[in-house]
Amino acid sequence: MIAIYPGSFDPITLGHVDIITRGSRLFDRVIVLVSSNPNKVPMFSTAERMGQIERSVGHLSNIDIDQYDGLTITYARQCHAQVLLRGLRVLSDFEKELQMAHTNKTLADDIETLFLSTSTEYGFLSSSLVKEIASFGGPIDHLVPHHVARDVYQCYAQTPPASTPSPPRPNPAAPVPKPMDCL
Amino acid sequence: MIAIYPGSFDPITLGHVDIITRGSRLFDRVIVLVSSNPNKVPMFSTAERMGQIERSVGHLSNIDIDQYDGLTITYARQCHAQVLLRGLRVLSDFEKELQMAHTNKTLADDIETLFLSTSTEYGFLSSSLVKEIASFGGPIDHLVPHHVARDVYQCYAQTPPASTPSPPRPNPAAPVPKPMDCL
Amino acid sequence: MIAIYPGSFDPITLGHVDIITRGSRLFDRVIVLVSSNPNKVPMFSTAERMGQIERSVGHLSNIDIDQYDGLTITYARQCHAQVLLRGLRVLSDFEKELQMAHTNKTLADDIETLFLSTSTEYGFLSSSLVKEIASFGGPIDHLVPHHVARDVYQCYAQTPPASTPSPPRPNPAAPVPKPMDCL
Amino acid sequence: MIAIYPGSFDPITLGHVDIITRGSRLFDRVIVLVSSNPNKVPMFSTAERMGQIERSVGHLSNIDIDQYDGLTITYARQCHAQVLLRGLRVLSDFEKELQMAHTNKTLADDIETLFLSTSTEYGFLSSSLVKEIASFGGPIDHLVPHHVARDVYQCYAQTPPASTPSPPRPNPAAPVPKPMDCL
Amino acid sequence: MIAIYPGSFDPITLGHVDIITRGSRLFDRVIVLVSSNPNKVPMFSTAERMGQIERSVGHLSNIDIDQYDGLTITYARQCHAQVLLRGLRVLSDFEKELQMAHTNKTLADDIETLFLSTSTEYGFLSSSLVKEIASFGGPIDHLVPHHVARDVYQCYAQTPPASTPSPPRPNPAAPVPKPMDCL
Amino acid sequence: MIAIYPGSFDPITLGHVDIITRGSRLFDRVIVLVSSNPNKVPMFSTAERMGQIERSVGHLSNIDIDQYDGLTITYARQCHAQVLLRGLRVLSDFEKELQMAHTNKTLADDIETLFLSTSTEYGFLSSSLVKEIASFGGPIDHLVPHHVARDVYQCYAQTPPASTPSPPRPNPAAPVPKPMDCL
Repeated sequence: MIAIYPGSFDPITLGHVDIITRGSRLFDRVIVLVSSNPNKVPMFSTAERMGQIERSVGHLSNIDIDQYDGLTITYARQCHAQVLLRGLRVLSDFEKELQMAHTNKTLADDIETLFLSTSTEYGFLSSSLVKEIASFGGPIDHLVPHHVARDVYQCYAQTPPASTPSPPRPNPAAPVPKPMDCL
Repeated sequence: MIAIYPGSFDPITLGHVDIITRGSRLFDRVIVLVSSNPNKVPMFSTAERMGQIERSVGHLSNIDIDQYDGLTITYARQCHAQVLLRGLRVLSDFEKELQMAHTNKTLADDIETLFLSTSTEYGFLSSSLVKEIASFGGPIDHLVPHHVARDVYQCYAQTPPASTPSPPRPNPAAPVPKPMDCL
Repeated sequence: MIAIYPGSFDPITLGHVDIITRGSRLFDRVIVLVSSNPNKVPMFSTAERMGQIERSVGHLSNIDIDQYDGLTITYARQCHAQVLLRGLRVLSDFEKELQMAHTNKTLADDIETLFLSTSTEYGFLSSSLVKEIASFGGPIDHLVPHHVARDVYQCYAQTPPASTPSPPRPNPAAPVPKPMDCL
Repeated sequence: MIAIYPGSFDPITLGHVDIITRGSRLFDRVIVLVSSNPNKVPMFSTAERMGQIERSVGHLSNIDIDQYDGLTITYARQCHAQVLLRGLRVLSDFEKELQMAHTNKTLADDIETLFLSTSTEYGFLSSSLVKEIASFGGPIDHLVPHHVARDVYQCYAQTPPASTPSPPRPNPAAPVPKPMDCL
Repeated sequence: MIAIYPGSFDPITLGHVDIITRGSRLFDRVIVLVSSNPNKVPMFSTAERMGQIERSVGHLSNIDIDQYDGLTITYARQCHAQVLLRGLRVLSDFEKELQMAHTNKTLADDIETLFLSTSTEYGFLSSSLVKEIASFGGPIDHLVPHHVARDVYQCYAQTPPASTPSPPRPNPAAPVPKPMDCL
Repeated sequence: MIAIYPGSFDPITLGHVDIITRGSRLFDRVIVLVSSNPNKVPMFSTAERMGQIERSVGHLSNIDIDQYDGLTITYARQCHAQVLLRGLRVLSDFEKELQMAHTNKTLADDIETLFLSTSTEYGFLSSSLVKEIASFGGPIDHLVPHHVARDVYQCYAQTPPASTPSPPRPNPAAPVPKPMDCL
């Protein structure tokens, strides 16, 4: 059975890694599908995000990474996937996720959405939370893979032209790059 | 008793039609009130939206369609309406709807908000979901009246200058117009 | 238009009074329908509850009080009521209320459930909360009509054989009648 | 992959049938596991419930029906199932389901709970709702398989020994015993 | 500032220990107040529960343990406590907790309820969950203090006098009586 | 004990005043900390917001007002605050608040978030609701301190250069500028 794990992964978090790892044990193949939200300017390009995912879960043998900008079920049909895999975190997730699942069901009755509950330690984690903490110079190493943390900091550090060579800890003295600068 | 059914209706969905139809059996007159959200650029102009509503529920004898940009309760007072009619879908609705109902109650104690629960088959339907699906070339005929579906597709089709004469089905080959192009 | 306001009213609270009063302004007639839950032993008999309601809202000219033990929609059909009126308090209400509304819709498509949001000051009030507070000797006069408060206290006071002539306030010294004694 | 679909199924509803049917397409084998809740007296015996399930989904080739009174994960280990399958209906489900999933995860890290969202038309359906409607003589044929509907009505009719010449109100035609009579 | 941490603690879990420990750092004194729910037969007597709490948090210098059967705010007034401390777990908690907080506020305006969010690893833990798992012979050592785990198992083991040579499935090693036997 | 009450306060509402007043009775010192959301253009400058807060709660002796643009816990450490104080309104708050509390806990284990439930009459109040009502010319005097109401109206009135002889739609009598004009 082939499962697709769609998302924007901007960037991939340890919560995503948790779902992918558990999914890889359940399905023959899991395709991590990077989608673009045309209404949001991402922090990382699609290629960058695919690279981050590759470094994070590439050691798992049955994981593929791809990108697609159309309806996920269209992609699913093309690669004969029967399952859309999604993680469930907290309540607000639940409604949005069910809306998507029901909508996808009306669009493709033969493809099922299966949900895994996110591990409790990542139950409140999201990509945007990671970016928000990092934008204030806070630590994010416990929330994303180490190489992703570096990428995120670099993104914030680049924009304020010079200095701030390594401001990873909350630092009231140093210039705190604003998310908007990077986004 | 006169009831006002306020909303942005951008565009009207079958969920809205369901509420209006049921409301028309309960109240002497139902005024469908198209409001503009000054913070959002709509897909359709107010006039276009009123036309879509007219074509969708115009056959009901006790329905009026109007527009207003101020506080709904101000309009309600002007036309001696005693009731604001609202549909309740899922949870998130509930809170926002209750907030509005309570706020309107503090502004006009003599006007009541009455809620109808949306039929289960439309329980996850919203105007923005319709636009999102259509933006990816997905089918929306089961979610909005047929003439509205045509309008929505036309909107997406127009923007990518020429070609794409009729790409209503999810089509990975054809250019997939982005919502932003149209909005 | 005739509306039915069904409930167990064991006992009627100020939240119920609020809904009935507002309903009486919206509908030609509101029938307060006392139902028995066969799985719960009530604090007050159906007759007692009807009497309490009569004293609480009897001054409203278009209110009837009745009892029924079957499906509410069966009763509604018999008296040509088109509307079931319900109050919405907090979240948990919402789901149970929607479940009932949808179920009733599948049983009788021509009868609609209309919801009024409970006034914020009664948003957390319920009959069982009233009984719980009273069982500990706490004050409930701000939660139910005065004559109901008296009835509730009497119920608790009777059971502990004699004494306890007037223990209305939380009183650590006096014997605190347990709910089970009365229920 | 073997999936276990645990529940009390007292009785099986069309919502359960929906999940089992969809599960049978996703997994090599689905074991419908009837569990007893030691704190609740069921309407049907375990054997009766297994029979009802057999008649409802027995036509599906890869479905097994079994019973177990211990922890579900203990059973899962014994039959080398890797997945617990659960349906998600409305909000309140979500929390209880997540609690169970997380608890089972702490008890057996190698077994995953996968959730399917219940089809919208069964989104508010539960076994106890079915029993409640039937206890008032209401129709339940659109909520459970026909043979189950018959069983439920029989249950209510049987207990009051014979006769029951004076049916408690709701249904003027059929004898309508109270739930407690049967439970 | 004196804070009261009320609950039934039947038995105390690691989630409770977490809140008490964090509370002891915030307040001058924390009184763990064991209350009886007159409608529920507890697994452990009030004295047993107080003993379990003593062994679990007795090493903290500013913790007192007491019992009370009336309204918590009556007790709070008697010992000049200004704060009721509560832990917040998942959503359903939230509403019940807010209901209690608002009710207590109407009963005693000078006493405030302060909430601490339960640590994520205990976010789904409750006393009744512990008992349910143990009743099936499942492990609970990661959910309650070790001595409490022993007490719980003993409770299940003791009640069926001697015998029970053939333990109901779950736990192959130890005799596992049903909750009802003990409760 | 020092508590920090962080927020954007754009502008301060009576709900905020309620929390600050109650907090001032519980803690030795409460620092109202005005933070900027780099992603949102505020209605009032940080200085203006601090002035509004000063006028609203300046009469309380143990309140300080400050601003900070970094992580709140960084500020908390600098001024040796042990507590972050937050108000809880309705459900949606709950999740966002818990997410923040848990995130802050992972960033600073020694600083605790304590929640007070907002008084029921302000349970649905937010700064953005105030601005929305005012933008339509509706009354807000029952939602914010009087001087703040004046500021908000002035803001809407100022932007349309002078006069505003031709009031933008909503209120036929009074000049009602649009939020966007001011924002």
